[in-house]
Amino acid sequence: MALVPAPPFPQAEFRRRVNAVKQKMAAQDLSALVTSDDSHIAYLTGYTAKSGYVPQAVVVLSDADDPVFILRRMDAPAALYQTHLGKGGVIGYAENLVGNPEQDGFDAVIDFLGDSRVSSSGVGLEVPAQAAQKFRARLPAARFHDVTGVIATVRAVKSDLEIEMMRQAGAITDAAVTRAAEVLRPGVPEAEAAAEIIAQLVRGTDGLASTALASFFLCATPRTGTSHIPWADDVLQAGSQVNIELSGMRHGYVAPLMRTFVLGRAPDRLRRVHDAEVAGLEAALAAVAPGRTCGDVAEAFYSAAEARGVVKESRCGYAVGLNWAENTASLKLGDPTVLKPDMTFHLMLGNWIDEDFGYVISETFRVTESGAEVLTGSPRELFELI
Amino acid sequence: MALVPAPPFPQAEFRRRVNAVKQKMAAQDLSALVTSDDSHIAYLTGYTAKSGYVPQAVVVLSDADDPVFILRRMDAPAALYQTHLGKGGVIGYAENLVGNPEQDGFDAVIDFLGDSRVSSSGVGLEVPAQAAQKFRARLPAARFHDVTGVIATVRAVKSDLEIEMMRQAGAITDAAVTRAAEVLRPGVPEAEAAAEIIAQLVRGTDGLASTALASFFLCATPRTGTSHIPWADDVLQAGSQVNIELSGMRHGYVAPLMRTFVLGRAPDRLRRVHDAEVAGLEAALAAVAPGRTCGDVAEAFYSAAEARGVVKESRCGYAVGLNWAENTASLKLGDPTVLKPDMTFHLMLGNWIDEDFGYVISETFRVTESGAEVLTGSPRELFELI
Repeated sequence: MALVPAPPFPQAEFRRRVNAVKQKMAAQDLSALVTSDDSHIAYLTGYTAKSGYVPQAVVVLSDADDPVFILRRMDAPAALYQTHLGKGGVIGYAENLVGNPEQDGFDAVIDFLGDSRVSSSGVGLEVPAQAAQKFRARLPAARFHDVTGVIATVRAVKSDLEIEMMRQAGAITDAAVTRAAEVLRPGVPEAEAAAEIIAQLVRGTDGLASTALASFFLCATPRTGTSHIPWADDVLQAGSQVNIELSGMRHGYVAPLMRTFVLGRAPDRLRRVHDAEVAGLEAALAAVAPGRTCGDVAEAFYSAAEARGVVKESRCGYAVGLNWAENTASLKLGDPTVLKPDMTFHLMLGNWIDEDFGYVISETFRVTESGAEVLTGSPRELFELI
Repeated sequence: MALVPAPPFPQAEFRRRVNAVKQKMAAQDLSALVTSDDSHIAYLTGYTAKSGYVPQAVVVLSDADDPVFILRRMDAPAALYQTHLGKGGVIGYAENLVGNPEQDGFDAVIDFLGDSRVSSSGVGLEVPAQAAQKFRARLPAARFHDVTGVIATVRAVKSDLEIEMMRQAGAITDAAVTRAAEVLRPGVPEAEAAAEIIAQLVRGTDGLASTALASFFLCATPRTGTSHIPWADDVLQAGSQVNIELSGMRHGYVAPLMRTFVLGRAPDRLRRVHDAEVAGLEAALAAVAPGRTCGDVAEAFYSAAEARGVVKESRCGYAVGLNWAENTASLKLGDPTVLKPDMTFHLMLGNWIDEDFGYVISETFRVTESGAEVLTGSPRELFELI
């Protein structure tokens, strides 16, 4: 059986994205742009295989329809499978650049630039700082520009196809939340519950599976004041509280969700925090509209929650989509980012109040023409598992 | 319930590690060493929560028994839970350093150094290059040294406690290989098989569960020429070949394994490759002994495999342990690293021969006083699932 390409989107979608980047390049008079960011590579090509632990980069050329992807030769077949680039657009570099203190895969990228006609023109770089030094040293005639953030800005507004991918991820997210409510019981080891919930995330729902496992956190009593522990070597008890953060993943796209579960009746303090946070959540969603800012949404959340006696120190969300957090806008007071239709955010209301007490709830939403649309269907409950 | 610390090793083990780093510091006249590497942080403290997507760093001080861990305030409770550092050794930085283009968590690390007595002495740095620039700019009186690789070198030789943790991970690895042989069947979606195997990795075996999920790859026909795809949106067929790479994980420690499965009888070509690679594997293990080099082990593998007609382009392994690959030595021709007892390696014989044909097998071993000890028990079979 031959390897037949199966990219996650049609070629026209990737060309639309590449063209948007090329417009940004034209504004800075760049004939080439080099990015080694895993998420940007996925955005521009569809490639999501996990080879980014060695150098690899996509080069967008102003005079070419499609980018060129330079990666370790061992990983080139995955690039042929997951992208539309074809053999002309995928360059596998030799194994002597791996585990070699003198040269690495970025030298192959530099060789490619040196061999093409960009070496004396403007080149945008979004690579680690040490690699950037090597580009400058080895291509002294080129004018290099740091383009960190340029592709991220392009990515902020999603296409319909991307939104659909996030909806698929969200359906899997919902199935995993449902599974959590089934398996979280006194006497169950945390790892056993995690195994069942993670299995649901992988196998997905309604015939659509995750294509990789996204981040997963299960922080149970007495660790509900922690935020990023996958799970612990511990057994759930009657009365335990369990804070979960998870997401399905479709070709890199996620729709994350946090929910809080109690193995019994919720204590009064937890119930009060939940009520205040849900009020804040609804106020935040109601504040979403094109033309408003991320800061406006945050203001709505913090005002409503604080009016009910709950203070949250951390930001209340961030831009989300490909490979989870997108490192552009934050939902926090003063963030000036103006909302546009089809921007997507994780309204993240995890609140780690004391060392041993925290509460979590969140929604993933997209900005619509007039408001917010939540991309998952899980109820906004404090789940009491009796 | 209060948060009671539950670090993965006793305090004496971490002090042994820190003392070994302090000896290296003394040789370079450093009064402080700063590392932001997730694996080094885990090595020096036991912290494995997944918060490294924002800046965080451990500072080893030459005149203190224990290091100081500076991380986002939201994550400080996880540090109190997973380490022996206590409140005096964990500094949570404020939320205004997150999603802020002007300042980030490294500024909190710099503030700490500036407030202590190290600011005009030697300071070792192992942080991203852009962060290093900020250290130099904000602490002009200090003498900074790039100490990349120093802690990695200390980590290369494992303690008995670390080897035991890798054995525990290896037992989970074996259970997952056994589970794979049960669930890989014609008609099963790849994601469904992955869900079952991953669930086994999470829940573990014999009462010991993984503490997080390590990398997982399932590359099936027609994608056996790829190496780093988690799994695909596809259904296994009669005759499909499935290449798997996985590991259990105990508090960051892994013992990875690759095995090849066929849903039916193995074709002749695959059988020949398997026989040659197993011969190479056994030759490589027989070549392991203190005083030999990584290059010697590689030479033994390539000679034996090539004598049987199989060429492998990529290196045949790498140092392994905490968070998988350790980026020190490689099992490749010419690598001069001298083997010492209790070094650990992933003898990684994945061989992606054609775009649509590859084969995988591997072992994780430790160097003993006289040879090699494999840390898992899975048979070295080409699994024919009839």
